[in-house]
Amino acid sequence: MRYVLGVDLGGTNIVTGAVAADGSAVLGVRSAPTRPEEGADAVVARIAQLCRESITEAARAGGDAAKIAGVGIGSPGPLDRERGLVLITPNLGWKNFPLRDRVSDALKLPATLDNDANCAVFGEFWIGAGRGSKHLVGLTIGTGIGGGIVIDGQLYHGASDAAGEIGHTTIDSTGRRCKCGNYGCLEAYASGPAIAARAVEGIESGAETTLAASVGGDLAQVTAQTVYQAAHDGDDFALEVVRETAKFLGAGVANLINIFNPDTVVILGGVTQAGDRLFVPLREEVKRRAFKPAVEACRILPGELPGTAGVVGAAATFTAQRGPA
Amino acid sequence: MRYVLGVDLGGTNIVTGAVAADGSAVLGVRSAPTRPEEGADAVVARIAQLCRESITEAARAGGDAAKIAGVGIGSPGPLDRERGLVLITPNLGWKNFPLRDRVSDALKLPATLDNDANCAVFGEFWIGAGRGSKHLVGLTIGTGIGGGIVIDGQLYHGASDAAGEIGHTTIDSTGRRCKCGNYGCLEAYASGPAIAARAVEGIESGAETTLAASVGGDLAQVTAQTVYQAAHDGDDFALEVVRETAKFLGAGVANLINIFNPDTVVILGGVTQAGDRLFVPLREEVKRRAFKPAVEACRILPGELPGTAGVVGAAATFTAQRGPA
Repeated sequence: MRYVLGVDLGGTNIVTGAVAADGSAVLGVRSAPTRPEEGADAVVARIAQLCRESITEAARAGGDAAKIAGVGIGSPGPLDRERGLVLITPNLGWKNFPLRDRVSDALKLPATLDNDANCAVFGEFWIGAGRGSKHLVGLTIGTGIGGGIVIDGQLYHGASDAAGEIGHTTIDSTGRRCKCGNYGCLEAYASGPAIAARAVEGIESGAETTLAASVGGDLAQVTAQTVYQAAHDGDDFALEVVRETAKFLGAGVANLINIFNPDTVVILGGVTQAGDRLFVPLREEVKRRAFKPAVEACRILPGELPGTAGVVGAAATFTAQRGPA
Repeated sequence: MRYVLGVDLGGTNIVTGAVAADGSAVLGVRSAPTRPEEGADAVVARIAQLCRESITEAARAGGDAAKIAGVGIGSPGPLDRERGLVLITPNLGWKNFPLRDRVSDALKLPATLDNDANCAVFGEFWIGAGRGSKHLVGLTIGTGIGGGIVIDGQLYHGASDAAGEIGHTTIDSTGRRCKCGNYGCLEAYASGPAIAARAVEGIESGAETTLAASVGGDLAQVTAQTVYQAAHDGDDFALEVVRETAKFLGAGVANLINIFNPDTVVILGGVTQAGDRLFVPLREEVKRRAFKPAVEACRILPGELPGTAGVVGAAATFTAQRGPA
């Protein structure tokens, strides 16, 4: 069995793994902090080191280290895929960095580059929640909200590799200010930090909740994660914050369904920990907002590959771009 | 030269024409009221009659009537393209009507069926404002707001032929009620009737304008058209209504650019009569709201085929679905 290395490069962590060409195995998953402050060379060296560890571990687990066909890299963007460049990433502090060729040189393996959200969504499409789908849209919800679009089984990149910025679609044109400078972006309501910010606003205006106590009164410690935990423990206010999140996400997902008429929408990221508390009102909001024939054609699912979707998808984009070896 | 008939079926009018297979000529364009109240049989007979007139006129103008390869039909939806059915159209009062086969039988020619907005947008893509484009999104602005999506040179239909309902994407989740039942749809702000409704609301709350006088004081007579005319004549309030329309459309178009990263966005319909008074602030709003790399990759243009985009595109969808004869 041929294997492809997948690299999921984030602002906080790097994850690598060796993925069987048919998706039947993900071996030697390795992770380490990115430490972008050490500079691009150090990050490339760390990626290469983790990849070597993945190869070794994969071989031990039964994979054939001699049959590594190449490396698929998922990176924050915007990117120039054709030239293999990371054009700009505030999180890593890079500009026009030739990440693809640098990793390729370090490992003496062919490499490809794609957007991190695209990779995670493509991973779910390939062997996760979106298996068997044809037209799929995915949202990755974390510090920001990213997106990936699969049309006819292929990642759609747009005219300049910038497609899928779903987090920065307006759902309230005069609404909350977003970090991108725009007003009313989906990300300004439903990203992790936005969920925490809405919770803190509620606490500050006097909501009755256990949330403040759960962070020892230091509201700066409230995160989306603490909100989900409080909701899980039955805190009414936290449950309301989750329901509101579902409504905002529902408006965004309804837009995607009315535009794309996909067969599947996959939601990835920490927010899926809220489970049915999120997905039941989310599906209801979508039903209220989107067209019936399009709603009926579409499943809305949480991702099934938390932690590895990016690695799996990065490997899959290598195969999609280079063809099977 | 081989010709294909194009049929543009609307709630008010039917337009037909004979389109050269290479797009070099549109001959024998004919039009008549739809009169849906006379029933589906009468509408099919009228379509067939107009098509025969188009063939005759096209032959007179130099086209070869013997070389009509088939009929492409654009119809309001939702549709089932594979079975050639109009599933439901409130404007025509049809349910599960086999329009494709009925027209095919009447003319003894092969026929295909596609959504009217898809056809108009595909016409502009083929030989109109979108010539040379690869990824294009189009908005048709009239009584409602429809849309069409061209990806890699092909119309994108989605999982159940329902893709492209751009008019019903939310730009203000708690905003104006839309006819579809949702709140804050783009259509509720920027369709022809919505533009007229916003103008009337302004007049009723005391705006200084020549608009009321231009309709003899009968505000029910205010249309988008009268607003454009007053703006053209320098009426400040009408100009403000057009600028606001540009802002709403700008939010919708920015969403499409952030999602699709298209190389071209085409705006079709009466609203383009407002010209630069619309397009200059529209482009500004898009620039303010969408990502720079995606904005820079995209031209935003008015359609170039007013009156015939639907016919041209319907013929083109026949060729796309059936292949060149």
